[in-house]
Formats: sequence, C-alpha cells, structure tokens
Amino acid sequence: MSDNKDNSLELLFKPRNVAIFEAKDKISYFIEGFKVQGFNLDNLYLISPTIENLFDIKCYKSFDDIPSDSIDLLILSVRRESLVGSLKEILKKKKINFVHIFTAGTGESDEIGVKIESQLQEILKENGVTRAIGPNCMGIYCPSGKNAYYPSFPTETGNVGLIFQSGDLHSKMIKFGSRNYNLKFSKGVSVGNCMDLQTSDFLQDFNNDDETDLICVYFEGFSSLHEKEGKKLLYALKNMKIPVLFMRGGRSKRGQTAVLTHTGSMATRRNIWNAIYKQTPIIEVPPSLDELIDYANIFYNIINRFKKREKTVIYPENERALVVLWSGGFGILATDTLTELGIEMPYFQGKTLEKLKKIYPGVVGSLANPLDLPWITQTNTFLEVCVAAIDENIDLVIIETDAWSDMESEGFKAYYNNLVKIKEHTETLNKIFIIILHQYPSESRNAFYNKLVKDDFLVYPTIERAAKSFLAAQEYGKKKKRFNLK
Amino acid sequence: MSDNKDNSLELLFKPRNVAIFEAKDKISYFIEGFKVQGFNLDNLYLISPTIENLFDIKCYKSFDDIPSDSIDLLILSVRRESLVGSLKEILKKKKINFVHIFTAGTGESDEIGVKIESQLQEILKENGVTRAIGPNCMGIYCPSGKNAYYPSFPTETGNVGLIFQSGDLHSKMIKFGSRNYNLKFSKGVSVGNCMDLQTSDFLQDFNNDDETDLICVYFEGFSSLHEKEGKKLLYALKNMKIPVLFMRGGRSKRGQTAVLTHTGSMATRRNIWNAIYKQTPIIEVPPSLDELIDYANIFYNIINRFKKREKTVIYPENERALVVLWSGGFGILATDTLTELGIEMPYFQGKTLEKLKKIYPGVVGSLANPLDLPWITQTNTFLEVCVAAIDENIDLVIIETDAWSDMESEGFKAYYNNLVKIKEHTETLNKIFIIILHQYPSESRNAFYNKLVKDDFLVYPTIERAAKSFLAAQEYGKKKKRFNLK
Repeated sequence: MSDNKDNSLELLFKPRNVAIFEAKDKISYFIEGFKVQGFNLDNLYLISPTIENLFDIKCYKSFDDIPSDSIDLLILSVRRESLVGSLKEILKKKKINFVHIFTAGTGESDEIGVKIESQLQEILKENGVTRAIGPNCMGIYCPSGKNAYYPSFPTETGNVGLIFQSGDLHSKMIKFGSRNYNLKFSKGVSVGNCMDLQTSDFLQDFNNDDETDLICVYFEGFSSLHEKEGKKLLYALKNMKIPVLFMRGGRSKRGQTAVLTHTGSMATRRNIWNAIYKQTPIIEVPPSLDELIDYANIFYNIINRFKKREKTVIYPENERALVVLWSGGFGILATDTLTELGIEMPYFQGKTLEKLKKIYPGVVGSLANPLDLPWITQTNTFLEVCVAAIDENIDLVIIETDAWSDMESEGFKAYYNNLVKIKEHTETLNKIFIIILHQYPSESRNAFYNKLVKDDFLVYPTIERAAKSFLAAQEYGKKKKRFNLK
Repeated sequence: MSDNKDNSLELLFKPRNVAIFEAKDKISYFIEGFKVQGFNLDNLYLISPTIENLFDIKCYKSFDDIPSDSIDLLILSVRRESLVGSLKEILKKKKINFVHIFTAGTGESDEIGVKIESQLQEILKENGVTRAIGPNCMGIYCPSGKNAYYPSFPTETGNVGLIFQSGDLHSKMIKFGSRNYNLKFSKGVSVGNCMDLQTSDFLQDFNNDDETDLICVYFEGFSSLHEKEGKKLLYALKNMKIPVLFMRGGRSKRGQTAVLTHTGSMATRRNIWNAIYKQTPIIEVPPSLDELIDYANIFYNIINRFKKREKTVIYPENERALVVLWSGGFGILATDTLTELGIEMPYFQGKTLEKLKKIYPGVVGSLANPLDLPWITQTNTFLEVCVAAIDENIDLVIIETDAWSDMESEGFKAYYNNLVKIKEHTETLNKIFIIILHQYPSESRNAFYNKLVKDDFLVYPTIERAAKSFLAAQEYGKKKKRFNLK
C-alpha cells in the first residue's frame, strides 16, 4: 500500500483498511457506522485482548495477528493513561497512515492531559509517517469512502465539507442539515484538540478537493502545541477558492473561558477575527448551529443549481426583494424584517407597473411590493403577475405559502405548477427564489415541505432566517468579486 | 334581552344569538366554526335571499323572518357597495348589539372605501346602541362563548387574549401557538380597519376580564376616523394591570407604506413608540410572529404555574443563567449567544463550588457553568449536581436535551424523572426552568417534545429563542416593580 507522504488526506477519508483498538461494546457506533455505509468488513480489524467477537466480526487478540502490515486508519480508544504506550507499541508493529485519537480527557482537562498530548506529538514526529486527528474527537464521515461514526448518517454523498472542533455539533450538522434541508456531504471531520492535524490542513485539502464545493467550519481556537497555526490558518483562509461558512465558538469573552474546558484551545480576540473576516473571502456565521445550517442551505442550493446546468456559480451581488404573500399582516412584518436587516423592497415603477396594471387590472393597492395575491394563486394571472414583477430591480423573490389540506386537488396542482414555473423563470435570470413555509406540527405541512425540498425549492420556515441566509450568499457574491474568484 | 349600554364587550364574545348575512358557501368556515365550538345552532340565523339551506341549517329569506327582535352579533358580509344600505335596513328591523363587518376593500383600498367607512360610522352614531368591529376583519374567537371563525381552532379555553389588526396573523397565532406550545385562549379579535371599536377598547375590556391574564397585540396604526385614538391608546396602555406583548407592524418606514394598503391605518413614528414603551408596562415584540408566540409561551407558563398554586405571579428580575449541556460544542455556542444577548453565566463559587466538588469529585473542568454532564444524566448524581448548582446567583436554568430512541427504557425514565425533579425544585424557588430540544423532522423527537409540553415543561427549539423570551419576561419583572403592579 502507498503511504501518505504527498500530504493528501485521501486515505484518512477513504481508508482501504481500518483498525479499532480497543474494540468494545461501548463504541459500537463506529462499527455500525462502517456497516451501514457499506465498508468491506474484511478490511475492518477489531482488536481486543478480551472479546472474541463483536457484531459478528471476529476480534484479533493483538496487532500481531492482523493480516496487513499497513493500516490506513487506526481508531484509538484507550484510557488516557495508556495512550502514549499504546501508540508507541502499535507503531513499532505496523505502518499506520492515519490515527484517529478518540480518547478524551487530555489537553482540555488538566496539566497531565496537556503533557500526554505533547508526548503523542513527539511520537508522531519521530515516526515521520503517521498523521493524527484528535484527541477528544468523534472522527471521520465520508459516505463515498464508506465510513461514518454514527449509523444514522446518510449514505448518499454530496458536496459539503465539514471541519468541526466539536463532535456533537458535527453530528448535529449532519443530522439536522440532511433532515431539514436535504443537505448531503462529501467529507466531514471532527478535529478535536488538534494535536497534529489542524483546521488549516483540512481547509487546504478541501480547497483542492473535486468532491467538495462548500465548507462549513466550527472553530474554537488553536492548540498550544502549534504556535504558528494562526499564520497558517490566515494563509489558508486567504486562499480559499470555494465558499467557507465560518462559525467561531468563544466569540464572547465569557465563551472563551468555556472553550478552555472543551477543547483546551487558546481562543483569540474578537477584533483580530473582525480583521480576518475583512481580509479573506470567508463568511462569518453567528454562534448558532441553526444559522450555520440555514446559510449552508442557500449556498448548497445555489451551487448545485448552477452545477446541474454546468455553469459557473453566480451569487447575488445586490439585495432587492420582491415579496409575494399569502396574507396582508405577514407582508407588513416581512417588510419590517427585511428593511431592518438591510434588504430593499423596490416599488413597482415605469414599464413594470404598467405591465402589471394590464395583466391584473384590480384594485391598485394590491399591486404593490409586497404583492398581496391570496385569492388568485391557482390562476394563470398569478403566474403572469409574478413574472412581470420580477424585473431588473429584483435580486430575490420570496413567496410565502401555506399548508394544503388536499395535495391531490386540482387547485393544489395548479398552484404548485405556478410555483415551479416562477422558480424556473427566476433561476433562469440567475436570481434567488425562496419559499417561506411556516412550521408547526401538522402532517399536511410536513408533506408539503418535503415535496418542496425534494423538488429543489429553497425553503425556509421564517422570513428572517431566509433573509439572513440570503445576505450571507450576497456577501459572498460581493467578496467573490473583490477577491477575484472564479 | 339586555343591551350593551354598559360598554361591556361580553355579548360580542359570548353572543346568545348570531345572524349571518349574506349566508353563502364561500364563508362557510364561520358556520363550521360555530358548529365545532358547540354553539346552539337554533340561535344561529342564516339569511340569504337565494339559498334555502346551508350545512343542514335553514336559511331565512330576510331579517323579517327571524324569530328574535334582538341580535347579539351580526356578521355582515356583502359587497362594499351594499354595506351602507344593508346596515341601515337591518338596523331599522332589528336591535343589533354588535356587528362584525367582514367585507374588505374599504378604507384600505381607495377614496370610495374611505367614504363608505365614514358613512358606516354615521349610521352607528345615529343608532347609538350597535357597536362594530371591522371592516376588513375575520372577527371573533372565544371558545367559552362557543364561537370561532375557523373550524380548526381549539375548543379548549385558556387565558390568553388576542387583539390583532390582521386576521391572518390572528389565525396563525392561534394555530401555531396552540400546536407548538399548547397555548390556549380566552378571547381573540381580529379588529381590521377599526371604524368603530378600537384596539384601546379591547385592551380596556381584557384588562378587567377575569378570564384573561395575558394579552398579545398586533397593531398597525390608527383609523383616520378616530383622531383621539392615540391618546386613548396611550391611556389604556399606561393602565394595564396584566402583561401586554405588543407587536407593531410598520416599525420601519418602508413597512409603514405597506400598512396603508393593508388596513389603511395611519402609522406613527418610531421615536414616539420608543417613548410609549418606556412610559407603559407593555413589552415590545420585534416584527416576527414566531417571536410573539415564543414570548407568549414563557408568560403563559409562568402565569399558569403560579395560578395553579394560587400565588401571585413572580417574574424574574435578574438575568443570570445556569446552563446544563448534552454536548460541549453546544455549550460554547450557548455561552456566546447568552452573553451577547446580555444574560450572565455566573461562575460557581464558595459554598456552591465546594458542594459540587463533594457530590461529583470528577475532573474539575466539567464543574463549570456551562455544566457538561452528558454521561451521568440518568443517575442521582446528575440531579444532585443540578440542585446544588441552582444557588441564589441563578435566575434561569436551561437544560439542553436530545431525542431518545426508546422512551420506554429504564434509562429514559430515570432521566425524565431527574428532569421533573429539577423542574419542581427550580420552580419552588420561583426561578425559570427551560428545556432546549432542537427540532428537525423525527418521530422520536416529536414524541419527546409532545411529552414535555404536555407535562408543562417550558420548551424551546433553540437557546436564542429561549433567551429572548426569558429577557421579555424579565423586562416585565422589572417593569412590574417600576409601575407598582400587583
């Protein structure tokens, strides 16, 4: 087997064989994850001095018994007191390309833990081949490499890459993102305390990865073992060719003290980060997983929409919205919310207004932006009014919709057909089309929501979440221009 | 029948008989609403010159045929051109206590519509008895009065009163509020263009209503027919004895122009409103229905919790939180979010810290606020740690939880029992206890969520929504003191 001297992380995400030490029932989710993803179980080596068999997979007594001399990925889960000795011993016996150090209670806990990490680092330096993620991390998710650390992760592959300094947030991003918005992922890594491989390493790797078109990062801070990581990270961020949604934990001072007990990282000051956001093409995400997933939703939708048409991705550069309503009151709130967030709502003027009056010569008042058209949504007039209103002054079209009790009715079909046509028209003009479907527990609501998501509509539960996500995409559109990105 | 000279709105919300003119299939939801709520259909008079029968209810050809001389509530739904003539004619024939003018296209539409409203006002002045809501409004919801304008509204009664200048937002507040948080309502009114009865009239009525303990308002502006309504509203707001959650549409300048085409109201300037929020005990709600429902959730929970114990309601006056986690990464984000919103997270000190060390002599790092205790949640230690940590420096306890695959397991029962005990302990100390259960489509998640809501836990889907709602309750706590409210 070839080694990983070329610095590629290919074998970490797509290991040809994997060893788990020490295999035990408590960490069975790793084994189940490989199983669900369809990993060849002949190449999954479980090592345990005490257990014969786990999930119908034979356990080896020791590394000596494993049929391969080289292992692409070792998942190391031992008590922290045994970490240093175990790793030393294993490296003497086998060539290990990557080690995922699962064990927690190291650098984030106390001085003893900090020392363990520095000893682990020494071992890797001496070895010269093996690279590590962790300690204190959940590991790898890569459906095209047939691995996942939880059996509940989707088996379908996508083009979102994840680099997370929290295993739990990493898992929730995958679960919530896939179930709420049908997001799919290329590669995900929970990096933990970053004793060896850093966030910057993964950024550089994903930046040159054909499978990844969007990166989401959750970052807490630098390991004290890596003094130059700040410069390295800045360099990596400056050179990103694909969008990076960057969420930082420990943005507040109080949050920084919490970071210390989580990954033991050294947090950095807010003003430094503000400068980084200015100097690099990355997009700052507030400290909210929901917001990160919301932002990822619009980027994912835009990227894959253009990819399908084999075209270069075009992001919005301006922020002018047309809002089409189901109800008047919602329109007022939408207007307030959009305006207060900095999104314009142009009035209809000139040719557009004349066209609208011709198509729908009703009460003049309703031909305003927001467009209040609840009674004609199933007619061709609705489609014509919307198409006419989407002129050169509009970057974003938002349609508020509502649940339908009967999705088999002719009325629903006519309405849905209108939505599909407005979507296609908007997207042909390289504008953004968003549907708002408010959420509360209801079967008909869920059914409609799932249909919309399945048909590649960009759907949000509230106007505010839609607007913030749009503004993130538009910020990237402006940055793309400023940083001369293709 | 007695009339309504005493200015009470009792007969509007609990009419002894109701007439609907002109009864037709298109507005059948009114009839269905009465049916579902259990209104005595013998006292529901449908009037139509053309239809014999609607939903098995006999229609009267004209008002002359109705067996009663006096009608408590008339729902008037005719073309706007017929409004003035119809009302005049009906008032000649019958004594009408209240009329709900459903017809839209009046003051919000054009000059003709404005004139119609002023003629309607003249008729009412001459008549001297009849009071009206609308035009351009959905009407009344009062489960204890056995009426609702949609069949989907809950039949159970509660203690939230609604005064909304948008029928759709009013309906959504009832639907989303009851389904998301199990909110129940005493009386709700969609007031529309406020030709006669104003928001201030309903505020004063609800302020003295034994059935109402919390009021939610959606306000757009004043009718041009009521010059002194500004002063009247300010007077009403100053004298509110129960909490009022006040959401204003048209908060932005751009939103104000949208208001004109919705209810034709004259919006007012932001700085005037800022002064009103300072001078009165009401709570401002940003322009978001979700946020209004979120706020209502915490007030509803607090009020009914104290009511059950027959005690005076105590609202939080400070903003110091203890956060108990399921995951470290969430804890960092929670710390950032709370801190940035102005909520403190005190460090454990002195006696509390010593007690915690004795109860749970584990790694010191985890005995910090946020408390990261994922592995011991089913043990008695979890309960003891939480109880010990809730000292005099804490006003708010937030526990993040997660879905359980098996809610029949002993593990779940032990954990849930811990939650119930921590809730009881926290509430005995008159502090606030909130559970965070993140939302994404999942059956087990829904089942757990529903169980929590049923058992009167205060649950929010995100830390941010919980924190903003808490801050609204705490603002009321401070205002209550400042305005010397009981």
